[in-house]
Amino acid sequence: MLEGLRATTGDDYPLNMTSLLRHAATTFPDNEIVYRDLNGSWNRTNYREEFARVSKMAGALSRLGVGAGDMVGVLDWNSRRHLELYFAVPGLAATMLQLNLRLASEDLGYVIEHSQASWVCVDESLLPVAEAHRDAPGVKGWIVLSDKPSDQIETTLPNVVFLEELMKDEPEEYPFEWVEEKTAAYAGYTTGTTGRPKGILYSHRAMYLHSMTVISSEKLNYNETVMLVTPMFHVMCWGFPQAAVGAAARIILPGRWQAQDIGVLAEALAEEHVTLANGAPSILTPMLEYYRSLPTPPDLTGLRIVCGASEPPLSLMQGFKELTGGEIIHAYGASETSPMATTNGDFPHTLPEMSEEEAWDLKRYQGLPMLGVDIKVADLDGNPQPHDGESAGELLIRGPWVATSYYNRPDSADSFEDGWWRSGDAGVICENGYLKLTDRLKDVIKSGGEWISSIDMENAILDNPRVAEAAVIGVPDPKWEERPVAYVVPKEGQEVTEDSVLDLLAQRFAKWQLPEKIIVSAELPRTSVGKLNKRQMREDYTSEQSN
Amino acid sequence: MLEGLRATTGDDYPLNMTSLLRHAATTFPDNEIVYRDLNGSWNRTNYREEFARVSKMAGALSRLGVGAGDMVGVLDWNSRRHLELYFAVPGLAATMLQLNLRLASEDLGYVIEHSQASWVCVDESLLPVAEAHRDAPGVKGWIVLSDKPSDQIETTLPNVVFLEELMKDEPEEYPFEWVEEKTAAYAGYTTGTTGRPKGILYSHRAMYLHSMTVISSEKLNYNETVMLVTPMFHVMCWGFPQAAVGAAARIILPGRWQAQDIGVLAEALAEEHVTLANGAPSILTPMLEYYRSLPTPPDLTGLRIVCGASEPPLSLMQGFKELTGGEIIHAYGASETSPMATTNGDFPHTLPEMSEEEAWDLKRYQGLPMLGVDIKVADLDGNPQPHDGESAGELLIRGPWVATSYYNRPDSADSFEDGWWRSGDAGVICENGYLKLTDRLKDVIKSGGEWISSIDMENAILDNPRVAEAAVIGVPDPKWEERPVAYVVPKEGQEVTEDSVLDLLAQRFAKWQLPEKIIVSAELPRTSVGKLNKRQMREDYTSEQSN
Repeated sequence: MLEGLRATTGDDYPLNMTSLLRHAATTFPDNEIVYRDLNGSWNRTNYREEFARVSKMAGALSRLGVGAGDMVGVLDWNSRRHLELYFAVPGLAATMLQLNLRLASEDLGYVIEHSQASWVCVDESLLPVAEAHRDAPGVKGWIVLSDKPSDQIETTLPNVVFLEELMKDEPEEYPFEWVEEKTAAYAGYTTGTTGRPKGILYSHRAMYLHSMTVISSEKLNYNETVMLVTPMFHVMCWGFPQAAVGAAARIILPGRWQAQDIGVLAEALAEEHVTLANGAPSILTPMLEYYRSLPTPPDLTGLRIVCGASEPPLSLMQGFKELTGGEIIHAYGASETSPMATTNGDFPHTLPEMSEEEAWDLKRYQGLPMLGVDIKVADLDGNPQPHDGESAGELLIRGPWVATSYYNRPDSADSFEDGWWRSGDAGVICENGYLKLTDRLKDVIKSGGEWISSIDMENAILDNPRVAEAAVIGVPDPKWEERPVAYVVPKEGQEVTEDSVLDLLAQRFAKWQLPEKIIVSAELPRTSVGKLNKRQMREDYTSEQSN
Repeated sequence: MLEGLRATTGDDYPLNMTSLLRHAATTFPDNEIVYRDLNGSWNRTNYREEFARVSKMAGALSRLGVGAGDMVGVLDWNSRRHLELYFAVPGLAATMLQLNLRLASEDLGYVIEHSQASWVCVDESLLPVAEAHRDAPGVKGWIVLSDKPSDQIETTLPNVVFLEELMKDEPEEYPFEWVEEKTAAYAGYTTGTTGRPKGILYSHRAMYLHSMTVISSEKLNYNETVMLVTPMFHVMCWGFPQAAVGAAARIILPGRWQAQDIGVLAEALAEEHVTLANGAPSILTPMLEYYRSLPTPPDLTGLRIVCGASEPPLSLMQGFKELTGGEIIHAYGASETSPMATTNGDFPHTLPEMSEEEAWDLKRYQGLPMLGVDIKVADLDGNPQPHDGESAGELLIRGPWVATSYYNRPDSADSFEDGWWRSGDAGVICENGYLKLTDRLKDVIKSGGEWISSIDMENAILDNPRVAEAAVIGVPDPKWEERPVAYVVPKEGQEVTEDSVLDLLAQRFAKWQLPEKIIVSAELPRTSVGKLNKRQMREDYTSEQSN
């Protein structure tokens, strides 16, 4: 790394989470934070009051002994206190650990232990989740989050303290010290399907820069209203509260919500005139149904919903826009990217003219990398592929808020390479700069040095109206390395022939890409959580061939 | 500074100027850069081509021996090459020094020598300016910027090379190395009225963060068109090209322009559909006159012009808006703040309702601090004043892009205090967070522990239609420390009495604030560049009193 003349600018001024909140509280003190409590009531506060509460909270935690280097777990919904902990804990140079309350209990126990959490904050409604880990080694005590007096709360947890009671006598100004910017402000664990969850520790610097990029990419400012829809304990939300506070936006916190509360979210989006929210197809699909069920659906013109997790179905994006005027913006990210890496907002004016159909198709792409993020797709030898929309490879990402290792997991070092994170996603970059992901890398079929997308082929097979399900896997081949094999499940009472499948595919795929074999089957193997189990299919196929 | 757990995010990924340009060139390669050459012709290029030219330029400079730690001066207009140098020089870990071609020749010589510039780039049209410094010690050679073949250029400069010729054979990809982010990317010198110019060295980190904040505050993105109106060698422009490139905005470069070219600027703003520009009252006032002179003034709705230097007159802001629909946004900054610190864009929705008059009045304030900037006004003992719109003090600023020292000027250490830069400007912060500057600190009258604004009082005196000019100074007073004295120049043929001035002031000012003395005078002393010379007035007054 080259070093030149040393500058005279404030280069030792650290990027700190506290500064984001202080800026909002000092410059936009009256801007609202609207939150829903456990009883379902909506309440209103503002940045001035929140900074005072964060100060009291930092005072209380500090008095408990929480300080630099401590890991503090949080089990909570999208509550006011959760937002406050986002700032109170990092403000002490401690690290706030997100605990995903939907993790399998065994995995949750692993996360608490592996992260060496010394204190865990638990919302009163989640005490049963916590109590399963009452003997977690290393935990000095449990901090209960509740509006109730402590004598109304029963729990089997040992060493319990009550945050609101601790806060009562703390002063409204806490003397926050500067925190070295590479200190971890937050920790989160992946919820991967294989192996134990892996932890990422996010620095103050990373989250400050991520906030600045989200603010500019998603056009946030103090006149916007942000609703944090996706659970704050889930990666899809992690970097959003900081961006909303950094922009000093008006914030709406829906508290605890479950599937049956979709109407509450849907009403609040309209009533609070939300302009930016986050979401996922699993939330937005029932929300659209809810709006459809209303005699008069609301006008949500001006609302953008950043939608991650998986590519939103066209019918969802189009239906939402047509019914409400609200826009669903697809974005891509992961635990390893804090979480945002690419977003598909306004089209650049330099794109050639498109038909409406082409435009909707492009809206399903993962979008363009945000300022600060470098992306490339690389072949198996690590060579970057040209931006031609055809040359597929694994997506690699680097940047100031992209992970370069997992916390205390030297066994996972091969997920990182030269400062790049290997996403495990396969796709292409188009001439217009757009990223289009197709498969998880492990589902791509590598044949004769070229890649065949299993998902593209499955979608093509599904165009046959008699087909209920399709799965394309790569099977070992001595000459071509791998060859595709397609499994097809007909709809009930329908018949599907191998030839009809092949004929359809031959219209779209080159001859060398066509499946070696098409297997019509009554059902496909699935994992315990209902996902297609392609690994199982590959093993079954191989063992049948060798019999 | 507290240090906690070390994060696992990419915290060693340095913030580099090259990354801004690479992001634009990779993701928005076709977005245009429109530039006007010395002949006055407009030409079009794009980010793809510009990155190739910056690469060739870096190759050429590197071959000359320019590298880490070198200072490279630039004497140029708002040209394409000037923009390219903004990236080619810092990309080599060298520092690009802005040379203000309007500086007095002696000061320019001082800057070249004090900065230890080893190479100086000069546009062919500015060779006479450079030739006055042909013997500058430390300069190894002069790099001529021109589209002409070298044999058509005559100069008395020694050791001359021609940049375009050096670039010709360089490859379109330069292997840019990472630059440590605290390395100085740019240098600029203040043009203060007292003493020698003082230098500030701006780090890659500072300018990257400044760019991100300007992008979000001024709502820049790839669908905006930015025109760099203020000279790129002037502090009011320094941080703007980087922000425009970081946002991958379409950029319009008007090249060399002088007062008589105001029509060219005005036409380009309209024809190129510019949405963001920078400017100053001295540019915008004649521009408004130009638009007024047209039979059909253009519709500039959507255009925002960030206007610094001094508070734009209400008549200018209002006139511009009414005639063209374009908006003038006042912003505040300085060489020491890279340059932006506060901006007065959209009003926060939390402000109480205002009459149109009140709204226009608020538009003249310096605005709200941008994300990343801390401001305070402090009394003479350094105590921060409350945000009440009344308690005046000196404006102090700190943040990642605010200077913490001057380059090799230990004699100026008292301009900085605990990481804060002392701006020398006096003003108040209002309850709504807005900064309102009133005076240069040296012009404030400190009386009995309170401050009296000389500018407020001057403006009040000017409300008398018979008054041509007014100046209020503070004179020493044994009891009150200072007392105000007002000088009044009547308009030609008019008479102004002391009593009429006092009567008018008594309506607006408290009794203790009223001037000790009102002196009606035919003219006021001025400096060589025409500014009111209050120092002279104070000296004259004091010596007259002691006679």
